[in-house]
Amino acid sequence: MTAAVTTAPLFKRVALIGFGLIGGSIARGARVQGLVGEIVTTARSEKTRARVAELGLVDRVVATNVEAVEDADLVILCIPVGACGPVAAEIAAHLKPGAIISDVGSVKGAVVRDMAPHLPDGVHFIPAHPVAGTENSGPDSGFAELFINRWCILTPPDGTDPEATAQLRAFWAALGAKVEIMTPDHHDLVLAITSHLPHLIAYTIVGTADELAQVTESEVIKFSAGGFRDFTRIAASDPTMWRDVFLANKDAVLEMLGTFTEDLSKLTRAIRRGDGEALFDHFTRTRAIRRGIVETGQDSAAPDFGRPHANLAKKGE
Amino acid sequence: MTAAVTTAPLFKRVALIGFGLIGGSIARGARVQGLVGEIVTTARSEKTRARVAELGLVDRVVATNVEAVEDADLVILCIPVGACGPVAAEIAAHLKPGAIISDVGSVKGAVVRDMAPHLPDGVHFIPAHPVAGTENSGPDSGFAELFINRWCILTPPDGTDPEATAQLRAFWAALGAKVEIMTPDHHDLVLAITSHLPHLIAYTIVGTADELAQVTESEVIKFSAGGFRDFTRIAASDPTMWRDVFLANKDAVLEMLGTFTEDLSKLTRAIRRGDGEALFDHFTRTRAIRRGIVETGQDSAAPDFGRPHANLAKKGE
Repeated sequence: MTAAVTTAPLFKRVALIGFGLIGGSIARGARVQGLVGEIVTTARSEKTRARVAELGLVDRVVATNVEAVEDADLVILCIPVGACGPVAAEIAAHLKPGAIISDVGSVKGAVVRDMAPHLPDGVHFIPAHPVAGTENSGPDSGFAELFINRWCILTPPDGTDPEATAQLRAFWAALGAKVEIMTPDHHDLVLAITSHLPHLIAYTIVGTADELAQVTESEVIKFSAGGFRDFTRIAASDPTMWRDVFLANKDAVLEMLGTFTEDLSKLTRAIRRGDGEALFDHFTRTRAIRRGIVETGQDSAAPDFGRPHANLAKKGE
Repeated sequence: MTAAVTTAPLFKRVALIGFGLIGGSIARGARVQGLVGEIVTTARSEKTRARVAELGLVDRVVATNVEAVEDADLVILCIPVGACGPVAAEIAAHLKPGAIISDVGSVKGAVVRDMAPHLPDGVHFIPAHPVAGTENSGPDSGFAELFINRWCILTPPDGTDPEATAQLRAFWAALGAKVEIMTPDHHDLVLAITSHLPHLIAYTIVGTADELAQVTESEVIKFSAGGFRDFTRIAASDPTMWRDVFLANKDAVLEMLGTFTEDLSKLTRAIRRGDGEALFDHFTRTRAIRRGIVETGQDSAAPDFGRPHANLAKKGE
């Protein structure tokens, strides 16, 4: 079932442990690009495995993690961060010598701490985090283009074979990603502000709206185009994945939360005191960051993120 | 310069005071739909007036508010909330008897308080708020489709002529909006949670990211696809407009902020204590609201709000 390729595949056999948004997107992208000889995958539930088999995107769907990693040159754990330690323990004895073991978790310090002790000498452990996603999850949610122009951060431990790192870098680059290398600790700080705190804030405000006595849920939904709806997208993300992220990156998240709370108090005080100048100054500064994000291609320059607009003519009489 | 229409226009002459995103979108929509005989507009700066004249979207651009409202059947103030009182005082003596006076402000209580005392008997004062917008501002930012399938809230004072309300409702409906009527106070509570608080939170977190010592601005921009970029869109909105909103809707915003802060403390405590169950439960509840917003057409069901994705094939070797 391998797609026709003109160049030699980067890996003969890749094992994807987990087939959600990220695992499914890796499989689709690798297939489209002809990056691997064979893709073997597994998932925890029988239902997901059946659906993956039906989708026909991989060469084999197997029942256990141990079977999946057999003879694989690249093993990628595409599962919630909290499950990485136990899975590493489970597969450790079955890894092929010389294989690259990686993951896609949104936290790196905890993943290194949980996985590294189990892994045998002779395999290359290179944690990775593709900074890409959508609010959807499950085997049907992936798409081959997910990683294009997004960053993938690798956090190879000191002493990692540069050859292995280069090989994993080439794999992610071929999926369309730009690759950056940093330490696990720095990764966790950067992601705490660019991803974890935004998700926590979004989850909070959507919950707040849900519980208000004075405003009905249907009013919140109806008038959400005033700004609220932008928060609901990321507050619809996978609950298991995000529970694990906050538990695993506790320290960095609490630190960012502290700074955010101070800043919110400052703006709250400006509102209470009617200090229009302080508000105006703050609101002017924040436009520059948006500009940077659009200029570097990390978001669409079209208004409303390029959301589709209806056609007025169709509604005319 | 009036567009050819098959039905009689709803208003012979409309005056738009201000030609930013909202004023410009009303002009474009009214033109496309042939809703008005003539559109007269003005703006505070000569530069904007010159640009509006150049765009050719209105029949006349005049230098003063007083000239603009002369003989107009419908006058709409499309300016920041804080400017509505002074402009009402300025135009009051020049309004045509029987004219409808409206606005588009995101706060209604303060607008009523500031405008009503100036307006003469014999005109119909019907405040309005189209709950629609993008992060862009200025005379070029408007588009005819902005109001389609969005809500426009009218807050006519007790005793308003139902005929006048019906006429303004028909105008907004013809621009594509769904119209709802409520009291100014309830409007201000509903918008505090669906629009004002989200903007304040977005402005705060973007500011927080901007000031961090441990993470560079270029890292924040690079890795923004992890969630942060969703916040930056609304934090790029017009600073003058938003300063005025927070000053004018202080009480309701402070009330919602109080509830939000309590909820954030609860989630912070769950993280600190490692209470995964509390986090998981919260994150599961918030998915339902997103579903409601998508089902009622207030947002796109496509992942990432339907942001355009690059094509993998183009990058392949």
